Parts: sequence; structure tokens; C-alpha cells
Amino acid sequence: MKAITYHGPEDFRLESVPDPVLKADTDALVRVSRSAICGSDLHLWHGGMPIPETGFAVGHEFIGVVEDVGRAVQGVRRGDRVLASCTAGCGTCASCRAELWSGCAVTAAGGGNVFGFSSGLPGGQAEAVRVPFADTNLFKIPSNISDEQALFLTDILPTGYMGAEWAEVGPGDVVVVFGCGPVGAFAQRCAQLRGAARVIAVDLDEGRLTRARERGCEAVNPAREDLSAHVLAATGGRGADAVIEAVGRPELLVKALELARAGGRIAAIGVIAQPVELPFLLVFLKNLTIRSGLVNPQRFVPRLLPLIEAGRIDPTEIITHRLPLADAVRGYRIFASHAENVLKVVLQP
Amino acid sequence: MKAITYHGPEDFRLESVPDPVLKADTDALVRVSRSAICGSDLHLWHGGMPIPETGFAVGHEFIGVVEDVGRAVQGVRRGDRVLASCTAGCGTCASCRAELWSGCAVTAAGGGNVFGFSSGLPGGQAEAVRVPFADTNLFKIPSNISDEQALFLTDILPTGYMGAEWAEVGPGDVVVVFGCGPVGAFAQRCAQLRGAARVIAVDLDEGRLTRARERGCEAVNPAREDLSAHVLAATGGRGADAVIEAVGRPELLVKALELARAGGRIAAIGVIAQPVELPFLLVFLKNLTIRSGLVNPQRFVPRLLPLIEAGRIDPTEIITHRLPLADAVRGYRIFASHAENVLKVVLQP
Amino acid sequence: MKAITYHGPEDFRLESVPDPVLKADTDALVRVSRSAICGSDLHLWHGGMPIPETGFAVGHEFIGVVEDVGRAVQGVRRGDRVLASCTAGCGTCASCRAELWSGCAVTAAGGGNVFGFSSGLPGGQAEAVRVPFADTNLFKIPSNISDEQALFLTDILPTGYMGAEWAEVGPGDVVVVFGCGPVGAFAQRCAQLRGAARVIAVDLDEGRLTRARERGCEAVNPAREDLSAHVLAATGGRGADAVIEAVGRPELLVKALELARAGGRIAAIGVIAQPVELPFLLVFLKNLTIRSGLVNPQRFVPRLLPLIEAGRIDPTEIITHRLPLADAVRGYRIFASHAENVLKVVLQP
Amino acid sequence: MKAITYHGPEDFRLESVPDPVLKADTDALVRVSRSAICGSDLHLWHGGMPIPETGFAVGHEFIGVVEDVGRAVQGVRRGDRVLASCTAGCGTCASCRAELWSGCAVTAAGGGNVFGFSSGLPGGQAEAVRVPFADTNLFKIPSNISDEQALFLTDILPTGYMGAEWAEVGPGDVVVVFGCGPVGAFAQRCAQLRGAARVIAVDLDEGRLTRARERGCEAVNPAREDLSAHVLAATGGRGADAVIEAVGRPELLVKALELARAGGRIAAIGVIAQPVELPFLLVFLKNLTIRSGLVNPQRFVPRLLPLIEAGRIDPTEIITHRLPLADAVRGYRIFASHAENVLKVVLQP
Repeated sequence: MKAITYHGPEDFRLESVPDPVLKADTDALVRVSRSAICGSDLHLWHGGMPIPETGFAVGHEFIGVVEDVGRAVQGVRRGDRVLASCTAGCGTCASCRAELWSGCAVTAAGGGNVFGFSSGLPGGQAEAVRVPFADTNLFKIPSNISDEQALFLTDILPTGYMGAEWAEVGPGDVVVVFGCGPVGAFAQRCAQLRGAARVIAVDLDEGRLTRARERGCEAVNPAREDLSAHVLAATGGRGADAVIEAVGRPELLVKALELARAGGRIAAIGVIAQPVELPFLLVFLKNLTIRSGLVNPQRFVPRLLPLIEAGRIDPTEIITHRLPLADAVRGYRIFASHAENVLKVVLQP
Repeated sequence: MKAITYHGPEDFRLESVPDPVLKADTDALVRVSRSAICGSDLHLWHGGMPIPETGFAVGHEFIGVVEDVGRAVQGVRRGDRVLASCTAGCGTCASCRAELWSGCAVTAAGGGNVFGFSSGLPGGQAEAVRVPFADTNLFKIPSNISDEQALFLTDILPTGYMGAEWAEVGPGDVVVVFGCGPVGAFAQRCAQLRGAARVIAVDLDEGRLTRARERGCEAVNPAREDLSAHVLAATGGRGADAVIEAVGRPELLVKALELARAGGRIAAIGVIAQPVELPFLLVFLKNLTIRSGLVNPQRFVPRLLPLIEAGRIDPTEIITHRLPLADAVRGYRIFASHAENVLKVVLQP
Repeated sequence: MKAITYHGPEDFRLESVPDPVLKADTDALVRVSRSAICGSDLHLWHGGMPIPETGFAVGHEFIGVVEDVGRAVQGVRRGDRVLASCTAGCGTCASCRAELWSGCAVTAAGGGNVFGFSSGLPGGQAEAVRVPFADTNLFKIPSNISDEQALFLTDILPTGYMGAEWAEVGPGDVVVVFGCGPVGAFAQRCAQLRGAARVIAVDLDEGRLTRARERGCEAVNPAREDLSAHVLAATGGRGADAVIEAVGRPELLVKALELARAGGRIAAIGVIAQPVELPFLLVFLKNLTIRSGLVNPQRFVPRLLPLIEAGRIDPTEIITHRLPLADAVRGYRIFASHAENVLKVVLQP
Repeated sequence: MKAITYHGPEDFRLESVPDPVLKADTDALVRVSRSAICGSDLHLWHGGMPIPETGFAVGHEFIGVVEDVGRAVQGVRRGDRVLASCTAGCGTCASCRAELWSGCAVTAAGGGNVFGFSSGLPGGQAEAVRVPFADTNLFKIPSNISDEQALFLTDILPTGYMGAEWAEVGPGDVVVVFGCGPVGAFAQRCAQLRGAARVIAVDLDEGRLTRARERGCEAVNPAREDLSAHVLAATGGRGADAVIEAVGRPELLVKALELARAGGRIAAIGVIAQPVELPFLLVFLKNLTIRSGLVNPQRFVPRLLPLIEAGRIDPTEIITHRLPLADAVRGYRIFASHAENVLKVVLQP
């Protein structure tokens, strides 16, 4: 089959690779109908995450149709339209029982916790994928939801929701979201869904800020406006109830401590790979809570699916580019360079 | 001053009564700018709640302007526009510290916990009211909120919100609300604000159902449609995640047990004065949670005010009648008889 | 193999039945080392739960050693000492994902949710048992825990803990527990573990009250002492923070409403099969929460196992009788008649 | 009256100062019966917290007897034995309504949020103290609790409890506590009260470790034993469920990230005044939660008082030194130098 494979930084290739096959009774084979390029994929692309092997298919956001299942699979069967959680767990170890499928020791030992980062668990920017522990990691897509509406349930919509949940966003809150990219956009939407009174979206890209304004946020470009002053004015001088960092930069986490009110909550859902020099006295004096972590879509899909079905959220709003799988490398270039006002690139077989 | 006073069932009168005066250093005097007739007032009107005394002003939903304060009052001063919590607490007893101002022993001993049910704590369908423990029971109204937008923060908007909170309504939930009167309407709005995917509004009054549909609910008249079948169809056969009873009838509480899914939550915010013959085995087999109680607006106003300021909720949508205070008795007749498609009657001095 | 089988009320028999066999790849066979007679088994014994079929093995509290596993089983293997959850779920349906394994539609359709109530899911008062979905329903027993210490993790220790959790027992609370039988005893222990300041144990059996006193409770026999007065005295007149009903009688649930303080929580973990005439106005006036439901040991075993390992709780304290499996019928007679100061009967092969 | 006053680092003096007087209707005067020296007082002593003024009484842990009250005070009266919260709030501003009395803008503007750090709110190492907003900041001491048992409710027992609450310690958890000083000791006790299976106490002082062992902890001296190995062994290789930092050193917060399991919670209750170089990728990869903050005893006293009354905790266990107020400076020297196996110094008038 055709797949986009990793050969090194900025060296992704469209190649023919062997078709995936069932390896365990709990596996399923999924014929991919849509996949997408994620900000995390850019860590591979830019070389920030060195990988010793090459030739495996990349991509952890994909949906498709079940082509075959192992004999122990109960929940899905051939022909079902399904979405896969980007993080794969066994479903029964201590970590999975604690709803941390991303920390599953069984899948980690068996090839990987996240699709598309190793030959042990090849990814979904391909024509087909083997999904381990299908009962845990696949969800049927209801017939009233389109492929594209379901696609982002695999990762970034749950990630955005997780940010709003971890920041304990509730009715009446004033929420600051750093970043108006795909994850930031969904964090903003989910903060609204949880009842935020005001969402203050922060970015340097005016196009993205305009889109944030369209989805009902106040949009602030800190290069042009004093963000702290904006937040204080919006909160009667108290500071933000919740801050969500969806970019992944240390200095924004530090800024979050300043913007939060006493008793405020901070969720860091962007990947901050460097150490952070944190003025911890602020955390103490302001009674703050800080959370971060990998997403576990298994926990959020049951909440988010009905919202898509009911039309309360339409995840397709972030799609700016649709390309054939064969043009994926061009998609990476566009996404990596922020060209063409790109927000999200979807790949079709 | 003029006030609407209680003299027995269906015998409310517009009378001159002595002006209220400050009695304690923690009191405030409020000149009333708007008041409203509440479903709870009808318990007095219909004689369901026999009261031994007469001549006191009725009404527990009112807002106004501070006219005078005792010397210990810190939070409000002369000229402030304020709303009063319908339930009054001292703020420092064990019950108030536990956020149950409605159970305050100090105010209960000193005249009453709720305005307008005794001569000890006369009500707000009057030109002025004495408010005890003003720092606990009054909230300033921001300048960007109108009198009518603030009025229902005194009772029924917090009551509706409490219903949604107690039913633990969260993103993606399917919620059934019994009743499309003022409280039911706000419970529906608050369920939406907390992220419900679908709100199923139930009533026998087609006019009220039409209004529920306008606010984005599915509206079911159980006299015309099989409610159980509707709920099962809406939930893939599972049952509702949450049910809010906002009417106050035992049989609806029993019906709620049937409609809830396993693990579902039921909030009873209508006053159910009679004993309920509860098929408790259903509560056991379905792992249900049931909550009921008096509202404590002090807890919810800080959440709800910013939502009104931000335009995410407009409480004036339920007002159907505006009458001068002098016509309040006519207002009671209209409200008690469900005449003129009445939903809510507001009184102006 | 030998098993205790159901043939009608008070007609349980020691019989030879066919050895269980693996039916599905997710099954395990467990050789039973200990089982126990539960209060729920008495519903069968007394005929309160009519069953159309006969000849199946009874009993849902059992532990043992894995004898064989289906090829899809990951978490346990031959030779592992294991305990089985009394309620069996598939682990992947919507109900199981919501941590309500007891409401699993898959196991319900496949034979039953609870061991020992049908021929579809025969019980553990036998030499061996087939356990479906072994990865979900079996837990390995650590080597530093004895068989008898692990036995009650199958049902009644989690049930007692669930009662304390649902009643939201926390540090400093005054807790009333109705019933000093096996479940009540564990509810008392778990209330203490969660930090209750005082646990008031209620029973009519003086022997059981003495045992409750030994485990640090205040013990009240309401036939001899005014329970309401005791609770008011213990709480400065406020009422109990939490009440746990562990007997299963409607009048005790009604009494619980009276004993609870404003804002109190009530958990009903005894099976109340009859309708309850509930004075619901109390629930409203006192802002109460009521919960009931079937236990899901899967949720509690990970919390309780370490407490047994650390010696903070020793579940064997309730064992009063140890009988060979062949004498199980005599065990039922003793347990059903409250003879010999029985608290709990354990069966050994 | 006599008081211990601040004149600069290591320059505290026993002096005569004017008797305090009532300034507001909401004030109370308290005749001090016991006070204590807190680790936070050492920040003044060591000069780590430069203060521009001198001559004010220090000390924020004190209890006593009410001598006089302003006319608006409701909850306490002359002759009541009372304890004062170390952080003083007005009780009615937005911060106090949110249960963050330590962030009260009203008391901050009126002299200070914490007793004993300025002339605006002089402290309790004195014969008498003026307590503002007495209804919010004083609690009556029940007659069955001694002065010394009540003394630490003013600050460090609530601080220890807050640590256990913020680290979300629950039944079955393995908890690491850095520090076996007064605050660490109480954090350990409170972790036990909330049901921890194992508490691992860490310190370099063997005397303090012995005391920790006596209170049921595992005690680890990281200078002699590999702490990480100990925690891994205690948790089957998973890591600690919760870590409480009660020392106030950046490197221990970093170590906490390493010791916590995936999904673990970290509470920092020691004051970390310096910036912390945090390896934030660990927070992300392990889905951690970090909290810190000032204590608000008002929130915890109602939970902790009944536990002392019931004998489930005896705070006097940490007292090693009792000195007359006149010898307070000697007490500071002992406490600052860790001499004489000091744990806690109590001062008596």
C-alpha cells in the first residue's frame, strides 16, 4: 500500500510499504478514509524528536472503515466506520484502568503508545493501519456524522477539551487561551461549551485572530496590545479564572502565572520541551493550580460525539486544506511554514 | 410607603405600611426599582402555606437602590444599584460558612430566612425593604446590566442553575427538564450553558413549548407524544444523563427515575410538598443520584453575573407582563390562572 | 465438580455438575479456594427473587487460582491467585467505559451481570468457575495478602466503601451507619478510613453493637436509646453529615432524612426492594443528596488492595464461621437465622 | 502591654507597647493565652523578607480569650475562648466569597492579610491582639479541647491538611512528604486521616525521622538511602500517587516531579521564594498536577476541630518547647538553629 514514511527531518516520502496484517486477536485493520497533519508531527519533521529507525508510516490522526478484526474483538466489525484514538492503550493495565491509556505499559512494550512514531505502531497517513486493542482504541462513527466531522476526535478536539477541563473552565469564567492554531481553536470552543463568559484568544497571526473573533472570542495580538491590561480590564482587575497554553513555549507559561487570578487554574496543552524558569512564588502567593499532560481521547470522545451530532460544535471549521495522500509532503511544507493561511491540512486517499 | 400585603389566601392588598428603618448596624435600606411574582408566592396566594399573621409585605424577588446602610456595612453604600438574595443569611454561622445561607439559624431566629413570608422579614413587592446582613445578602449590579436583566438573579435564575449543577449537567449530556415555566426555562438555559448536547423540555402548555423550542430545546408534550420513547430514541436506548424536575409534582419525580440512564442524576427544584411513593429499587438498579433543596443565590450570582454581562444569557426573555406595583393583585390573578400566556410578571413602582 | 446449586427457596443442594469450560477467548477458568455467603444470596434462599431455572451454582463472592485462560486474555495467566468482581462487565461498552460494569449490556445478554443467579453465569460456591472477560473482572492477589484477606474485595468491602464514598464522607464528619452486619461493618471501617470524626453504628443486635464498639464506633440500639437525640447531641444539634443505610429497609431511609443535617448526604447500600413513602419536603428543606446502586468492585479494588497490604484494614475481622463447601447449606441456615452470633460464613473447598 | 517586636533581622525585642484598642465595629480584642513561633516567622528573623518599619508585635499563631468586641460582632463575645486564623479576611469581598481570605483586598488595604508582619496588623506574640472582622477570623474553642490542642488550628495544622487536600490524597494512596518539621508532620498526619495506605516521610534529621516513624510513616533519609528506589519499590514501580513539599526548596519540587506516578498530584506548601528551573516535559509526559498557595484556615477549621474533639488527631504531639513570652527571643534562637531537637516552640504569657 501507499504510505507517507519517515526518513529523517524534512525527509518524509510517499512510498509503497507492505500492507498491515492482524497480529493479535485483539487487533483490527482499518482502511483509512481521512487523515490529518498534526502539530506534533512537526516535531518529527523539524527533527526535534530524533528517531533511530526509518521507513515507518507517520500520522496519528486518522479515521476509516474496519476491514478485518481479530477473533477477540467485540465492539467493532468489518464495515464499521471508526475513529482511532491517537494514544493506544491495552484497556486493562493499572494505567488504563486509571484512564491514562497514553501511559499504558503494554502498548509501550508492544510497539508504542502513539501511532506514527515508530515501526512498532505505524501511523495513519497511509492507506491502511493495524490498530491494537481495537475494543479500547476504536470508536464507531454515528451515521449522522461525516468523516471530516469525526476526524479531529482522534486527537486535537479532545486535547482542546482536556485543556478546558484541566483549567476547570466553568460558567461565568474569563479564560485566556494562548494560541489560535488548531488546538488553541478547539480549546477556545470547548471553553465556550463549558460556559465561559469570555474567551480571550491570543496569537501573533492576524489571520488566526480574525478567525478567533469569528468564533466569538476576544482576540488580542500582544505585539499590538497590552495583554495584561486587557485581561485586568476584562476581570475588574482580578485576573483570569483560567489560562490555557496551547502553543508550547516556556515564556507563555510564565505569562500565564501573571495573568491568572488568585485561585486560578492553568492548563498547558502545548508541548513545552525545554525546562521552564518558573517564578514559583507567584504560584504560592496566588494559590494557583498547574496541569499538563498527554491527551487520552478515550475519555473525551463519549462527551464530544453527542455535541457534534447535536450541531453544537462543528470541528470542520478549522480545515483550510484538503490534499490527496500523495501530496502529503507538500501539506507538511505548507503547515510547517504557516503558508497560505493554513490552519489544518486533511489528507484523503 | 405602599406595599402589597398578605391578608390570607387570594387576599393580597395594596396598602400603606410604615417605612422600613435600619434596625442593626449590618442592615441596609433598599428603595425597590423592580420586583417580580414568583411561583413560590402562589403557595401563599393559594393558601397552601398557612401563615398566622397578616399585614406584612410579600415578595422575595426584588432589586433597587441602596438608601441607607448601618455603620458596619462595608460592601455597599448609598446610591448603589443592588440585587438581594431571596434567602438571607448572617454570613458567619456554621450553616452560612457551609454556603447554606438558606439554613441560617441567626436570620431564622431574627425574623426569617426568606423575604416576604412574615412580618419579621417583610418582602419586596413594596417601595422599600430592610435587608439584614447587607454585606452577605446584597450584590452590586454592574452598570452594563439593566434592572430587568439583574432582577432574576435574586432567585429563579440561580434556582435554574442550581438544578443544572445538581444534575451535574456537563458537555455532551442529554437532559430532560420537566416544566417550561420561569424556573424550567432557566434550568434549560443553564443546561445549555453547561454544555448539554440536547435539552428535552416537557410541558403540557403548547405556548410554553413553543418558547422552549425557540431557546433551542426539543419540546415534548407528553399528552401528545410518548416521552419515554422520545428520550430512548434521543439516547440510543440508554436514557437521559440528567433529569431536572422544575414543576413540583411527585409523579414527575417518579417518571424521572424511569427516564434516567444508569448512573444518571436527578435534581428536583420544584417544591414537592407531598410525600412521594418512590420505586426505590430503580434507584438501586440504576445507580441514581437524587438531589433537592432551597436555592442559595449567594453561591451562584458571581458565576451568573458575568454571563449576563457577556450577553451569553438574557434573563429578560421570560418577561411577559410589566405592571405597576399598584396592579400587583391583578398580576397575581393572571399568573395564578396561567392567563394571557403569562410566563413572568414584573412589577414597577 | 461439586457445587452448591439452586433448586428453589430454601432448597440449595450440594451436587455434582459438569466442570466449567472456556467458551470465549476472553474467558478464564478459576479453581475456587474460598467463597462466602452474602446477604444478597439470602434473597434467593428466602424466595424474594423468583428464578425460573434450577441447577446452577450459586454464590458471587469467590477467589481462587487461574487454571486456564482464553488466548485473548492478557492480564492473568495460569497459576495466578485472583479475586473476581461479583459484577461482570465486558470492559468496552458504553456502560463499562462509564465505570458501570454492573450495567454491562454485553454480559447481561451473554448470561448475566452477577455470578450465581442464572445458568448463564454460574456462581462461585463451587470448585471452579468460568469468568468472562477475565481482563476486566479478575484482579491478581498480591503475595502479601492472604486468601481470606482478599475474599471480601469481591463484593462487600467495595460495597461498604461505595457507601462511604457516595455519602461523601470526609475528614471531620459525623456519620450514621444503619446496620452492623458484614456490609455495615465495612461501611463503618471505610467511613473511618476516609477521616470521619465519629461513626454512629445502629443495630438491634447487641452482639453486633459490641463488635461495632470494638472497631471504634459509637453503638446505638434504637430499641434502648433515642437515636435522634444521640445524633443531635453528637453534632451540636445540627444533624449527621452523612448517613449510610446498610440494611435495606424503607423506614430506615426515611429516618435517614430526619437524622441528616442540612446539606447532608445519604447513601443506601442495602437493597430496598419495596417502594418507599418518602417525605420529600425534607429533602427540599434540608438540601439533601440521596444515592443508591449496585457495587462495581472494579472501581474500588485498586484503592482497597493497598490498604489491606499496608495493614490499615483487615477484612477478616468479620469472619465468624469457616465451613467446608460441602456444609454450605448448613452455613445458609445459620446465616439466614442469625444463629451462633454469625456475621460472615466463609466456605472452603 | 508586653510584646515581642520586630526591629530587624535577628533583632526581636521584648518591649512594652500600647495596648490594642477596638478600631471598628467588627473588631474584637483577644487576650492571648498561647502563641507559637512559626517557620514563616523565621523569614523575618533571617531577614529574607525585608520590612521597612519596626516596633510592631510579631507572631501569627495565637489563641486567647475575647476581652471586648465591636457592636457589629455577632459570633463571639467577651469571655469566649477563641482561635484566630493567621490570615485575616473581611468575609464579604469577591476573594473572601471565593474562600480565599488570604487574598482579601479589604484587609490588605487596612493593614495586612497576615498577623505580625506590619504595624497595620500587629501579631500575637504579645499579651493582647486586635482582630479585625472577628466574625470571619475567630473561631470559638469547644470546652473539651485544651488551649494547646487548639493552638495549631491557627495555621500549621490547616496548612498540613491543605497539602493533603491539594495533593488529592485519598484511600489507598502512597504519599511522599518532604519535610518532618511541624508542617510536614501535620501533612503526614492529614494524609493518614484521608486514608493514605503508606506515607513516606523524608528528612535529613534523624531525630525528626524517628518521630515520623512513631506516627506511622516510613521514614527515609535521602543522605543514607536511595529515595527514588524506595518509592518505586513501595509502588510496584509506578511512583507516588501524591507528593507534598513541606520544606520550601526548589530542588525538592523538581524531585517531586520525578517521584510522582503518571497522573500524580504535587502540593507545595513550603514557601519556595526562588525561581524554580522546572523540567516541564515531565509534567507533560506524566500528566501531573501542581498546586501551591497560602493557607486559609477558615476553610479547614470546621473539618479539623471535630477530629481533635474525637481524639483522632492530637496536635500537641509536635510541641517540644514551652517558654514564657518573655523568653521568646531565646525560643527564636533555638528554633532557628534546630537546637535541642526542637520541633515547635509554644509561648505562654
